[in-house]
Amino acid sequence: MSDLPVITYHPVAGEYAWTFGGAPPVMRIKTPCVLDLSTEDCFAGRVTSEDDLVSRLNITGLNPQTGPFFIEGAEPGDTVAVHFVSVTPSRDWAASTTVPLFGALTGTHLTALLNEPLEEIMWIWQLDRDKQLCRFTARKSDFIADLPMSPMHGTVGVAPAGGEVRSALVPDAFGGNMDTPEMRAGTTCYLGVNVPGALLSLGDGHARQGEGETCGVAVECAMNTVLIVDLIKGNGSGLPVTPWPRLENDDYIMSAGSARPLEDAFRIAQHDMVTWVAGLCGLDKLDAYQFVTQAVESPLANVCDTNYTSIAKMPKRYLPGRAYEGIHAHLRELAAGV
Amino acid sequence: MSDLPVITYHPVAGEYAWTFGGAPPVMRIKTPCVLDLSTEDCFAGRVTSEDDLVSRLNITGLNPQTGPFFIEGAEPGDTVAVHFVSVTPSRDWAASTTVPLFGALTGTHLTALLNEPLEEIMWIWQLDRDKQLCRFTARKSDFIADLPMSPMHGTVGVAPAGGEVRSALVPDAFGGNMDTPEMRAGTTCYLGVNVPGALLSLGDGHARQGEGETCGVAVECAMNTVLIVDLIKGNGSGLPVTPWPRLENDDYIMSAGSARPLEDAFRIAQHDMVTWVAGLCGLDKLDAYQFVTQAVESPLANVCDTNYTSIAKMPKRYLPGRAYEGIHAHLRELAAGV
Amino acid sequence: MSDLPVITYHPVAGEYAWTFGGAPPVMRIKTPCVLDLSTEDCFAGRVTSEDDLVSRLNITGLNPQTGPFFIEGAEPGDTVAVHFVSVTPSRDWAASTTVPLFGALTGTHLTALLNEPLEEIMWIWQLDRDKQLCRFTARKSDFIADLPMSPMHGTVGVAPAGGEVRSALVPDAFGGNMDTPEMRAGTTCYLGVNVPGALLSLGDGHARQGEGETCGVAVECAMNTVLIVDLIKGNGSGLPVTPWPRLENDDYIMSAGSARPLEDAFRIAQHDMVTWVAGLCGLDKLDAYQFVTQAVESPLANVCDTNYTSIAKMPKRYLPGRAYEGIHAHLRELAAGV
Amino acid sequence: MSDLPVITYHPVAGEYAWTFGGAPPVMRIKTPCVLDLSTEDCFAGRVTSEDDLVSRLNITGLNPQTGPFFIEGAEPGDTVAVHFVSVTPSRDWAASTTVPLFGALTGTHLTALLNEPLEEIMWIWQLDRDKQLCRFTARKSDFIADLPMSPMHGTVGVAPAGGEVRSALVPDAFGGNMDTPEMRAGTTCYLGVNVPGALLSLGDGHARQGEGETCGVAVECAMNTVLIVDLIKGNGSGLPVTPWPRLENDDYIMSAGSARPLEDAFRIAQHDMVTWVAGLCGLDKLDAYQFVTQAVESPLANVCDTNYTSIAKMPKRYLPGRAYEGIHAHLRELAAGV
Repeated sequence: MSDLPVITYHPVAGEYAWTFGGAPPVMRIKTPCVLDLSTEDCFAGRVTSEDDLVSRLNITGLNPQTGPFFIEGAEPGDTVAVHFVSVTPSRDWAASTTVPLFGALTGTHLTALLNEPLEEIMWIWQLDRDKQLCRFTARKSDFIADLPMSPMHGTVGVAPAGGEVRSALVPDAFGGNMDTPEMRAGTTCYLGVNVPGALLSLGDGHARQGEGETCGVAVECAMNTVLIVDLIKGNGSGLPVTPWPRLENDDYIMSAGSARPLEDAFRIAQHDMVTWVAGLCGLDKLDAYQFVTQAVESPLANVCDTNYTSIAKMPKRYLPGRAYEGIHAHLRELAAGV
Repeated sequence: MSDLPVITYHPVAGEYAWTFGGAPPVMRIKTPCVLDLSTEDCFAGRVTSEDDLVSRLNITGLNPQTGPFFIEGAEPGDTVAVHFVSVTPSRDWAASTTVPLFGALTGTHLTALLNEPLEEIMWIWQLDRDKQLCRFTARKSDFIADLPMSPMHGTVGVAPAGGEVRSALVPDAFGGNMDTPEMRAGTTCYLGVNVPGALLSLGDGHARQGEGETCGVAVECAMNTVLIVDLIKGNGSGLPVTPWPRLENDDYIMSAGSARPLEDAFRIAQHDMVTWVAGLCGLDKLDAYQFVTQAVESPLANVCDTNYTSIAKMPKRYLPGRAYEGIHAHLRELAAGV
Repeated sequence: MSDLPVITYHPVAGEYAWTFGGAPPVMRIKTPCVLDLSTEDCFAGRVTSEDDLVSRLNITGLNPQTGPFFIEGAEPGDTVAVHFVSVTPSRDWAASTTVPLFGALTGTHLTALLNEPLEEIMWIWQLDRDKQLCRFTARKSDFIADLPMSPMHGTVGVAPAGGEVRSALVPDAFGGNMDTPEMRAGTTCYLGVNVPGALLSLGDGHARQGEGETCGVAVECAMNTVLIVDLIKGNGSGLPVTPWPRLENDDYIMSAGSARPLEDAFRIAQHDMVTWVAGLCGLDKLDAYQFVTQAVESPLANVCDTNYTSIAKMPKRYLPGRAYEGIHAHLRELAAGV
Repeated sequence: MSDLPVITYHPVAGEYAWTFGGAPPVMRIKTPCVLDLSTEDCFAGRVTSEDDLVSRLNITGLNPQTGPFFIEGAEPGDTVAVHFVSVTPSRDWAASTTVPLFGALTGTHLTALLNEPLEEIMWIWQLDRDKQLCRFTARKSDFIADLPMSPMHGTVGVAPAGGEVRSALVPDAFGGNMDTPEMRAGTTCYLGVNVPGALLSLGDGHARQGEGETCGVAVECAMNTVLIVDLIKGNGSGLPVTPWPRLENDDYIMSAGSARPLEDAFRIAQHDMVTWVAGLCGLDKLDAYQFVTQAVESPLANVCDTNYTSIAKMPKRYLPGRAYEGIHAHLRELAAGV
């Protein structure tokens, strides 16, 4: 059994943050510790039926963040390790929608076109938590389909560098709204620290999501989530040891690049993976380029947000080295005792 | 056992095509039939050691194509179905290389930069066909790693529309150099026909390849490949029934979009999948958009070629309809008898 | 007066080419010579009123090309110089239109979206050749405006490299559908030769066009055009001396880059200009980078075609060297005598 | 003579802002008023010779902002009008440099490549304020060239929407680091207000700059700048009347779009111009699309910053309406009296 301290935090309306950076910490935590949290859905819980169109609800904020948590001792150059012990939908339904001028297959505020926006439609998905299924019900025909539940968090992030404050809708080097299905129970997320205390927050739970989040909105739901948070001190080089968000599960190490156009998100993730693998395997840069090229898996995360996110996944069974000195395995063991 | 006619064709130097369109057919075939073929590697077999740098070999053509085959009765609006029965490396080694001004993590002729090109290095991979392994040997250290063999074809295509002739390095709506690891044994590839006879060809075998083909070159090898080719007549609508290449295996239907920037390749593949799923499930367009968003898998194919290629994969277990009236299952059965 | 031979060529329906490469030459010419040509509009003359919607006309080809001309002695590595003596609309009206799934401010076949296409509308512009004015008449209100006539050619190109054949709608390293307003009387266009005889053609006249060709279609009209064509022999280096299309008028040298995304078109044009200026001024590459950065003008040509085109313009008054040994000034003098 | 109040403000080290949003106002101003300001160069005045490489100076901030100014009465939905009366270099030299991993013709932190960075070189430009010339002196040869001085500000902006704080290196809907040569004396810049008081600031003076700011750095210098600031109250629609930065001089109205990829920056600027012209001319949206397509000029501003910036320029002589009810002409008159 784990002896880690367990911190329970269940915010209510008015207690959420809406940005990465810029929000005062809700508490200070010492690592390693367990966080037993709840998060609201991306709509801040305002959507409860198919009639609740976002454009009509006068919603002023999206992706409410639980946090931020001030991590004692965290300094720029360090890395925060966030291990997801469990991610559990807290309701038996979830919501998704088309949003006018948002999503990959429509004109947007940035891909500014003269076409009329798509119709705004809200879908309520039924969640069967016993069978771990999400039920899709078509709005304009009788089609029904059950997809496996696969809960994840769209947003996990720390405060940005350079004094910036970014909307909770943004993914970037500080993490944020990466919207990758890889951010699920059993995974450790590594984030480079930019400001003292790191200011960690998370939210935007999805009962499931396809890769790319094509329409811009996943199967959005409130979550009960248990994390272990740990701190990896930097190497004293003055450079962050974690330049972009990284993830690790029992089978893969992963890098997450976020940028536009999408090829730049791909380049960031692959470049980070080449550099990382070179270090883990003692390889020359070009040998690592060759090795990663033939072994990597490259699923997309989101192609709809302010920045697009691309994931580079390297199977651990090909790699002799242990990322971050094996902290994932250690956290996995601790998680078993939570 | 299959009663299909078997056509064997093993071209030698001087008998390859180097373009999609523009090359005279090597033979006329009646469908359904089995093609028992050999293909040369992307270097036209000119590379045999680590000292054979492409820039020094005066190689005038890359991606030699076996074919094209004139498919009797194929007309614009029809679809060619190419089922891969087996894809087998014909040598016990393969080659990969960095290419100056080519690849995802370097300046190129199009992403034109002032940086010096990367060093050109050739890697020879050892293939263990019994154990189905590809052995990577680093050039600048002692690192060795074995990756699973997973043979595939980088190029499968027909003649383009509009009288165009495209290099065998190009992926587009006609197929071509899509470089997706999904193009392997057990998969059916669907290509819309643009010219009478379709003019099908293939080549560019890879013993394996990561997703995105980051450095621009896979584990390149000559192949012995057995296909079943069939013809699906169009629906008389005047529109092609297969606007972009599609693939199907026992578990997934897939769309392949090729364009730049990468988000447009993603959009093409996802748009085609939404349209396809709407038809298979009797769904309204926006219902299909929602359903595909939550269920799709989106691995990248290449982020290095003239156009980038993105794959949209939809699990067949979620879909009531059968793509192309179940021809994949039928070809799978025929393949069992070859 | 010029003693150049004058070749007159006025093709009629059935005598146009529709591709760069792939079409047999209409005649062989010896350089230097004057070509007195006519070109049809992009609609092949099929549009004559506001009721002639392209989607209804069953138009099978766009951008008919006058030519191609086989230039005797032209070999890969050489450069063709095309000096525009005059470009004159041959009718007193021109046409423009929205095209479903084409243009910068709408979803397209490549930026594949689920929005409904824009309405298709045809505008007939009245051309006052005496006053050199183009009259715009709004279709849905009483607004009228006169814009200056500024005749130009959207397409000027040679056969592509690598045995490719490209649609007359494509701009690339071989020239083609660059759609830059700079391609007007008084300008010399330099094109690198890829195949024996170069196979020069031109078409797609515009009475005027904004920069970027936002809706995808300019003020399209048939032209009477007089050119001087000359040949610049290569430098024997084995590399083309003109890697991308270049232009020169009395005030500027220019490079035209064509690619997607648009930043790559920009990079190509600027990279070529840096290289070109380094040679003309005897500058180190990074000194040229600095100098061009502060002096260059960067208007867009098209952001709607298969590739986007960006122009880099360098004022000649800042440059000591003469491009191509001063051939523009020489052709300008010859033009005065035509 | 103008009766406007004149506010003089010359900050010293420690008194600059480094972000848009997030910095406390340096003073409250009532409009209309004249601001007589000084701005430091992008290097915060730390570079004084060719030996001062940015990477060695431990510079922690770039683009110091003079301001922000709290504009009394400014509310979200309003528009701030900033008229540039004069922009004058305050020293007789300026500096430019290559920056490792920054600029259009090199790999960057976002276009992440494996190539070695370009060499870092600093150029000192001599400014002849009498002759209005900027002298370029090559570092690696004897080349010298004089370019016309054309002073401008790279950054003019207000606080962003949504509680965001952005680095002074970012251009976006709030203005910021647009780096357009159009931001010069005689021009009015319109910025939509996002927060009470608007929080206007400016900086990053350039003695001159080419279009696109190819190497990432202009001819950077400190400035003495005189502005007139005025406030245009919103229309009560709840929507900002100025969705993206707009500019106006005596000849043109202009829209500035900032995004990646560059075609999206183009789309934003052109879309805003189509909408704006439709309003000014009483045109249907598609009529305006056609009209703008044929009349617009489209120079690039920057293709190096966090977002790229594209300008759409419409000649005022074609337009019957007066933008913002003719405020530019009014400010121009007031400026004559300053």
